Amino acid sequence: MAGDRCYENYEIGEQHHSRARTTTDADIRMIIGAAACDHPNHTDAVFTANHPIFRAPCTPGVLVLSMADGFFIDAMSMNMRLPLSYGYDRVRFLKPVYPGDTLRADLEVVAKRVKNNDWGIVDVQLEVLNQDDVLVAVLVHKLLVLRRGSSIEAPRYQSEATA
Amino acid sequence: MAGDRCYENYEIGEQHHSRARTTTDADIRMIIGAAACDHPNHTDAVFTANHPIFRAPCTPGVLVLSMADGFFIDAMSMNMRLPLSYGYDRVRFLKPVYPGDTLRADLEVVAKRVKNNDWGIVDVQLEVLNQDDVLVAVLVHKLLVLRRGSSIEAPRYQSEATA
Amino acid sequence: MAGDRCYENYEIGEQHHSRARTTTDADIRMIIGAAACDHPNHTDAVFTANHPIFRAPCTPGVLVLSMADGFFIDAMSMNMRLPLSYGYDRVRFLKPVYPGDTLRADLEVVAKRVKNNDWGIVDVQLEVLNQDDVLVAVLVHKLLVLRRGSSIEAPRYQSEATA
Amino acid sequence: MAGDRCYENYEIGEQHHSRARTTTDADIRMIIGAAACDHPNHTDAVFTANHPIFRAPCTPGVLVLSMADGFFIDAMSMNMRLPLSYGYDRVRFLKPVYPGDTLRADLEVVAKRVKNNDWGIVDVQLEVLNQDDVLVAVLVHKLLVLRRGSSIEAPRYQSEATA
Amino acid sequence: MAGDRCYENYEIGEQHHSRARTTTDADIRMIIGAAACDHPNHTDAVFTANHPIFRAPCTPGVLVLSMADGFFIDAMSMNMRLPLSYGYDRVRFLKPVYPGDTLRADLEVVAKRVKNNDWGIVDVQLEVLNQDDVLVAVLVHKLLVLRRGSSIEAPRYQSEATA
Amino acid sequence: MAGDRCYENYEIGEQHHSRARTTTDADIRMIIGAAACDHPNHTDAVFTANHPIFRAPCTPGVLVLSMADGFFIDAMSMNMRLPLSYGYDRVRFLKPVYPGDTLRADLEVVAKRVKNNDWGIVDVQLEVLNQDDVLVAVLVHKLLVLRRGSSIEAPRYQSEATA
Repeated sequence: MAGDRCYENYEIGEQHHSRARTTTDADIRMIIGAAACDHPNHTDAVFTANHPIFRAPCTPGVLVLSMADGFFIDAMSMNMRLPLSYGYDRVRFLKPVYPGDTLRADLEVVAKRVKNNDWGIVDVQLEVLNQDDVLVAVLVHKLLVLRRGSSIEAPRYQSEATA
Repeated sequence: MAGDRCYENYEIGEQHHSRARTTTDADIRMIIGAAACDHPNHTDAVFTANHPIFRAPCTPGVLVLSMADGFFIDAMSMNMRLPLSYGYDRVRFLKPVYPGDTLRADLEVVAKRVKNNDWGIVDVQLEVLNQDDVLVAVLVHKLLVLRRGSSIEAPRYQSEATA
Repeated sequence: MAGDRCYENYEIGEQHHSRARTTTDADIRMIIGAAACDHPNHTDAVFTANHPIFRAPCTPGVLVLSMADGFFIDAMSMNMRLPLSYGYDRVRFLKPVYPGDTLRADLEVVAKRVKNNDWGIVDVQLEVLNQDDVLVAVLVHKLLVLRRGSSIEAPRYQSEATA
Repeated sequence: MAGDRCYENYEIGEQHHSRARTTTDADIRMIIGAAACDHPNHTDAVFTANHPIFRAPCTPGVLVLSMADGFFIDAMSMNMRLPLSYGYDRVRFLKPVYPGDTLRADLEVVAKRVKNNDWGIVDVQLEVLNQDDVLVAVLVHKLLVLRRGSSIEAPRYQSEATA
Repeated sequence: MAGDRCYENYEIGEQHHSRARTTTDADIRMIIGAAACDHPNHTDAVFTANHPIFRAPCTPGVLVLSMADGFFIDAMSMNMRLPLSYGYDRVRFLKPVYPGDTLRADLEVVAKRVKNNDWGIVDVQLEVLNQDDVLVAVLVHKLLVLRRGSSIEAPRYQSEATA
Repeated sequence: MAGDRCYENYEIGEQHHSRARTTTDADIRMIIGAAACDHPNHTDAVFTANHPIFRAPCTPGVLVLSMADGFFIDAMSMNMRLPLSYGYDRVRFLKPVYPGDTLRADLEVVAKRVKNNDWGIVDVQLEVLNQDDVLVAVLVHKLLVLRRGSSIEAPRYQSEATA
């Protein structure tokens, strides 16, 4: 099955830590190709050179958030029983991130509630830190996770089908 | 200057509408290259064929959110006076999105508050709709925008430098 | 409708200015992936180090032209009534462009002519400048634009469908 | 040296033929990431479904032109003595191109002239055809090529340095 | 430390299974952008339609191998003590792979040998299977892994630095 | 036909040389998007700064191998009669490769054998060198090539169809 930790297995306060990843110019271009989220804050070096807050084209907030999703998948998602992204609460971008910065995340289960007979919602807080341990973003990722007694069958990841 | 609409120019209830954009397989691959947010929900067609909710690999939530950022930039951002992404509130993914779906957004200013002498925060709600006018996601994008009396100088977009 | 400025609304001599965009290594790789336009001028740093004119791998002419298309879309296209790219006249690459350079365009309507009852052709000249205001390329983009009295119906952009 | 065919070696009327390449959705996304040339003609399937001329999102003109550059590099460029792209004349897009179409080019030297002691300009006409042998675009690519007696030294391609 | 399983912890015959991943057109374009490995076998639909073995543009062998590397990283690499890719032995491509196919790998340690005081070499055989459990490729990936008594210090993954 | 050099035309000892290509950050991101082969060795600058062997995120082995495939295609493949990649033997990565390095390959036919009435196998050894002529990788690429007397018809490359 797609991970075997059910909603009931998650405890408020449990912590996880992600791998790290260095952001690059190329990442900005790829997310713009994917989503057309092109703004001078991220692609115009003359504009940002004169900007009161930025010193260079910076990594878009949605790219930091996408990296945070990658950190969540790396640290927690593959063990969850059929996880679905329900949404995000209180995403805050605290410091600019630039190509060359190396980000990682500290994750903590901060809340959980039953939604219905089949699904519970687990709230995972991510603190995204850079290479100097400075907090650059914080957010709560809300995950739908199958409950233990659910009759919904979780499909298997391929690897399990062969095990 | 980078757009001339100050914090004071935004009124609660004002509405905007974005262009539309059709999602593709390639978009999923590009955001994975940019952010390593790779999960079987989005890249394993055998897994999703057996999934109780998905019928095929679906567009990641963070890609829908990145497209929403593109819709915001298209519809509102270029007119704002030095906009900065402050964060998001209450992002909810309501329906799966698949490659081939065409998304757009309806935008509305839903709140605003002064932060300090220089900056105000404008809350823009985005309703993301697909080609059948079904609501697939909703979110509030919080923007820092320069106040009218601020002494902070907004750098010019290049085009203005030549005008 | 897809922009409401008909052929008749364009006047010879009218000017527009685009946003700016900084070119990167990643842009060269993406256009090569898209079009296989791979030449040592753009991807071989040893070759260009010994080149009499280049000092490093330079941005391909077709990428400069693609950026110019982006500048045109940003500055003029979304207001045009059903614009179609008819072609280009006299494209000239005047100076090498390197990753890190920030380009923008000054646009001017330089000619127009009626093609038939439905369509007119508007000639837009683009002067592409770098961060030092040096002209790096010049070209004329020829656009088919719907005439005022045409019976051809322009489809709506999505945003208009919801307005 | 970077190819050994000098300006003097090219004859008006000589013909070449390129490889072919099938266009895809991904190509459109990559050129948009590279150049921000994003327009509903190419990325909005609802808009194009209602378009009087297109039946689906079509390949941007600048991508057809970039593919033509790839065809030129494949068929002629690597043999030229230090080729530089001088520009394009009379580029015309004659038929829409859609993802799935397979393009190729027929090339012909149509003009040449001496520019100075070192360089000549060779005009190569490209006819871009699709899988049904329909002409979809035509253009003249103007190339600077070293003259036979020039004292400018052409750097070597890497392979020659080892031969 | 970068995974804590030393060379000594690996046993011949131990087996692992990877996640699965569906290949797409976009993957072919991205690896061509990255490596210029463009051949009509992979990008010309007219050529492959007439090919005695292929029925459509197929996934390049090096892309299948790159996916196999992803399967290895997913299934084994993150637990290894400072793994380095030493090379591959006997890579064989057995069946064509097309966009839309879903691949996964079965992995088995098939040999190991001490290289010096610090490093051992672990040979991991990967059998790459498609959605119909057909073997499409087989290969042996040779990994350098730190030995238990080595004085070389493995740097920590970021997540460990914060634990 | 797809190249006219049959199996019988290749001689052991014949040598070829490829073009060169400079690796970039963007190449690493594109192959990760294509194949999910993401490891801290290639994307985490803090991890590699503390690594006993690497000094920065390095180019993945499979990307070096993909570039080698590009070098093979450039130097030999287009002349072969219907080449198919049969596999690789003894791939060894000898030195780290970093973004900014310029690679090229020396190629030599090192073995050949008849497989059946239609196909022969040609073994091409590639030595991959960097800008300082240091050998960074070596490998044997095994190619299936049509035999002279084979009744299998090689489809034509597009260009030939028009010649």
